[in-house]
This record gives sequence, structure tokens and C-alpha cells, in this order.
Amino acid sequence: MPIDPRAFTLHARIAASFSRQGMMRHLGAELRRVEPGVVEIWLPYSDKVTQQQEGFHGGAIGAVADIAGGYAGLTVAPEGMEVVTAEYKINFLGSCRGGALRAIGRVVKPGKRLIVTTAEVAHVDETGQEGPCALMQQTLVPVPQTY
Amino acid sequence: MPIDPRAFTLHARIAASFSRQGMMRHLGAELRRVEPGVVEIWLPYSDKVTQQQEGFHGGAIGAVADIAGGYAGLTVAPEGMEVVTAEYKINFLGSCRGGALRAIGRVVKPGKRLIVTTAEVAHVDETGQEGPCALMQQTLVPVPQTY
Amino acid sequence: MPIDPRAFTLHARIAASFSRQGMMRHLGAELRRVEPGVVEIWLPYSDKVTQQQEGFHGGAIGAVADIAGGYAGLTVAPEGMEVVTAEYKINFLGSCRGGALRAIGRVVKPGKRLIVTTAEVAHVDETGQEGPCALMQQTLVPVPQTY
Amino acid sequence: MPIDPRAFTLHARIAASFSRQGMMRHLGAELRRVEPGVVEIWLPYSDKVTQQQEGFHGGAIGAVADIAGGYAGLTVAPEGMEVVTAEYKINFLGSCRGGALRAIGRVVKPGKRLIVTTAEVAHVDETGQEGPCALMQQTLVPVPQTY
Repeated sequence: MPIDPRAFTLHARIAASFSRQGMMRHLGAELRRVEPGVVEIWLPYSDKVTQQQEGFHGGAIGAVADIAGGYAGLTVAPEGMEVVTAEYKINFLGSCRGGALRAIGRVVKPGKRLIVTTAEVAHVDETGQEGPCALMQQTLVPVPQTY
Repeated sequence: MPIDPRAFTLHARIAASFSRQGMMRHLGAELRRVEPGVVEIWLPYSDKVTQQQEGFHGGAIGAVADIAGGYAGLTVAPEGMEVVTAEYKINFLGSCRGGALRAIGRVVKPGKRLIVTTAEVAHVDETGQEGPCALMQQTLVPVPQTY
Repeated sequence: MPIDPRAFTLHARIAASFSRQGMMRHLGAELRRVEPGVVEIWLPYSDKVTQQQEGFHGGAIGAVADIAGGYAGLTVAPEGMEVVTAEYKINFLGSCRGGALRAIGRVVKPGKRLIVTTAEVAHVDETGQEGPCALMQQTLVPVPQTY
Repeated sequence: MPIDPRAFTLHARIAASFSRQGMMRHLGAELRRVEPGVVEIWLPYSDKVTQQQEGFHGGAIGAVADIAGGYAGLTVAPEGMEVVTAEYKINFLGSCRGGALRAIGRVVKPGKRLIVTTAEVAHVDETGQEGPCALMQQTLVPVPQTY
């Protein structure tokens, strides 16, 4: 089956930006899925992402939600544009420990001035069992790319 | 000048929890100030906290805001209680690179069921010049300590 | 077809609270649907709900989103409990004028200490055409009913 | 003492927009103070603004917070521009009944693309006693005025 060149380009564009994020590299986050309006990020559990009770740190959960939403927004931004996060709001739905986080960002409303997204973060334990972890709602601003 | 034993206890309580946070240790965050209702966290710039344009990562900014607010809340929670973040909302006020972040969390409204806080994150560059970085508003829930 | 007495009770419980809201009566809001975890509110356009450009006022949009989410939460709260809104966050997705607003509140995560909901507000014009109006994410606290 | 013509113009600009808001007129809200970056709105208690327990309705609290922040933003927007609310987040800090609400909106960060504000809503009872009611954080977008 031939690869759709546009899908390939979209993935390459997101992957190029993702690989430049020192923090995501250090925490061990992985870009797993890129589709128009949808991006999926995984973050495996390690002692780099824990809080005081050995669960995933809210900062790590917020970080993967933020970038899943942000890159979902980037898939619908015009070529040559970047997006920056104006703000987000996140609810934590349960503590989670071990396994991995899976953040799925989705565009709710694209736009020239603002892009609105959501991200659902699930916890996936070592046996593959899923549970809710966090829900985020985010506002992005498209800006000209400068690098 | 004698040390106020209560202030000492308060600082020790927050420091004990802070030191258990793998993620904060890994990123290099420092607990700098603990007062009733106020906590200050610093995060020096490094390649562990950058995004794709080499500024501080939104995830790192969110993390220090979240814990500055959370620990400010912990200073007003009854002995034997922990606080967990129910949710927060953060606005990013400008990009920042190099230097360090300074997050000051403050309790807006203490309570038995909920604690509301804010955190102001400033960027402090290598020369000591300050600029606004982020503003957070947060809801905490006091829960019995389990460790 | 016999009426499910539990569904009837659920609707009656929400309707009894709704009818006590002076503001909703004054603005002309209608309770249209009550299911476990889901509540739908409609608000017809009038000069009681306009802002300076004759579109629906953000305050009116926020109000119907807040109560759609709040009543969705009430459908999953134990008998004898009320819910109060701890906080919400709302993104406005487009201006809307004439016709009516339709707010659908949904429970994302029920809980004893906190209930998390979302509400989608659509604008429905005079011809029945729909468009996005707002998206809300909300935290509720169950409390004993006092009236 | 001569009136500063700029302050006069600022007040007139906000008052002209405020008077066009059908919902604010209907609810009985009053514009009490306009300064660069600061706007104060009062809302007296009436049966138009109550919820099911006869306190001020969250929708009314949200509405006065939203417009206090929005008009504070308008005071720093260039002539010929309007602002629209992209989103806000509001925490409710206590129930309040009777008396009036006083919402003070303040600009945290002005900007060409976005303006960030906060609003503090206090409850003022019949004897003049004040208590906290709500805290809001908001993102505005400057847009060309069209009326």
C-alpha cells in the first residue's frame, strides 16, 4: 500500500519539532500517532516523572497533555507557522503509578487567531488496563515559525 | 536571634515532601522559601527543561507553578493531611530562555474541603532582570497523608 | 410503554432545583433533557441575554454551561446531596446571535469528593443550523442538601 | 480641579459599550470605576440573579467577573479595537446572598495578540461587610471594532 505523502509530511513536521524538545527527550516521552487534528504521546513511568508518593507527577501529566494538544493544533496550522500555548486548564482524575501515560490531543476548533484543543490523558498499567488520568482544555496561538 | 520552632517545622514538613519528588530532583528545582500560605520554588535553566525553541518548556513552567501552589496549600493544611491538585489553569505570559524560573505560590482561600491558590512564575535572567512568565490558578483537595 | 420510575424521579429532582433558580427563569432557560450523567438546557435569544454587539452575552453562555454541567453532576450525586460549582473554565468558540443556545452537560468522572464534567454549548439558528459556541470544563463538590 | 480629558475619554468609551449590554441592563449591573487597566462593576442582589438556594447565581458571578476583566482589557486596547473573551476560568470562594457583588478586573499582561486579566469578586452585605466570592483568570483577544 503506498504511503500518503501528505500524512508522511505531517508526521515528519511534528516529529521534527518533538525531537527538539530537550524536556521530552529527558523524560522519555514518545510520539506515537499523528493525524490531522489528532496527536498521541506516550510517557513511560520512571523515577524522572514521580511525585512524593511515587505516582506520576502532575507536572509530567500536564507536560504530556500540553504537548499532545499543542501538536494536535500544529497539524492544522498553516505551513510555516508554529503554535504557542496561550493557556491550558487541566483536571486530574486519579492517581496513577507504574505503566505509562497515554495523552491524546484533539483539535476542537481550528482558527487563524486561536486554536482550541482538548487532551485526554489515560493511565495504562503493565497489564494494559486503562484508567482515566487527566483532562485538559487548551488555547493555542498560531505564530510565524522562527527557526 | 532564636529560630521560631513553628516556622522551622513548617519548612521541614514541606522540604521532606519536596525531596521525595523524583521529577523535581531530576529537573533541578530548589525549594527557596516556606512561610504560612507562601512557597517559593526556583528552577535553573538546563537542557532538561527546554522546548523546541530552547526556551523553558511549558511543562516545566506548569510543574513549578503546580508545586509552588500545592506546597503553599500544604502550609495551611492540618497536620497529618496532604493536598492533591484537583485542577489548575495556567496562562503563559512570555517566552523565556536561560537564567531561572521563580515560582511563588500563595493561598487565596484555605478550606477543609478545598484550598484555592495562585502561583506567579517570573523569569530571572543571568543579570537578575525579571520578567513575567506565567500565572496559575489552582484548586487543591486536602486528603489524609498515607506515607 | 411504561415510564421508568427511576428516570422520572431523576427528571423531577433536577426540575425541582431548576425551577428554584430565579436567574434561569428570568433569562428564559428551559430544561430539555435529563439522563444519568447528561443534562440539556436551552436558552432562547432575547434582549435579556445580549452583549454590546447584540450577540449572546458571555455571561449567559457561561451560565447555561455552568448549570448544564452542574445538573449533569447532580444526576450522579447520592440522594440528599446537592452539588456546588468549585470552578469552571470556558472557551468561547464563536459569536452567535438570534436563535437559541443548547448546552449539553456530561459527567466525565463521578466521585465522592469531586465530580468533573464538561459542557458543550452550540448555537442553533432560526433555521435549525448548528454551530459551536463554547466548551466548558468544570469541577463540582457534592455537599449535603440544606433546603 | 480640572478633569483629565484622557480619563474622561476612557470612562466614556467603556460606559458606551457597557450601556449596550442588554444582559447587564436587565440584571441591574453598574459600572462604578474605570482606570487604565482597572474596571469595577457592581451587581445588586435581586431575584433576577439567584440560584436554587437564593444565593447569587454562579452565572451572574461569572458574568460580572467576565465583563470586569474584559473592560479592564479594553482600557489598554488601542483606539478602534474591541476585545473579545477567548476564555476564562473562575473559582467560587463562598456562597453569598443579599447585598451586592463587587467585581474588580485588572490587566495582568497587555498585548497585541492577547491580553491576560484577573477579576476578584467580593460580596458586600447590607452592612458593608466584605467577603471573598470568586476569583477569575481570563484571556482576551483584541479585534477591530465593527459597530
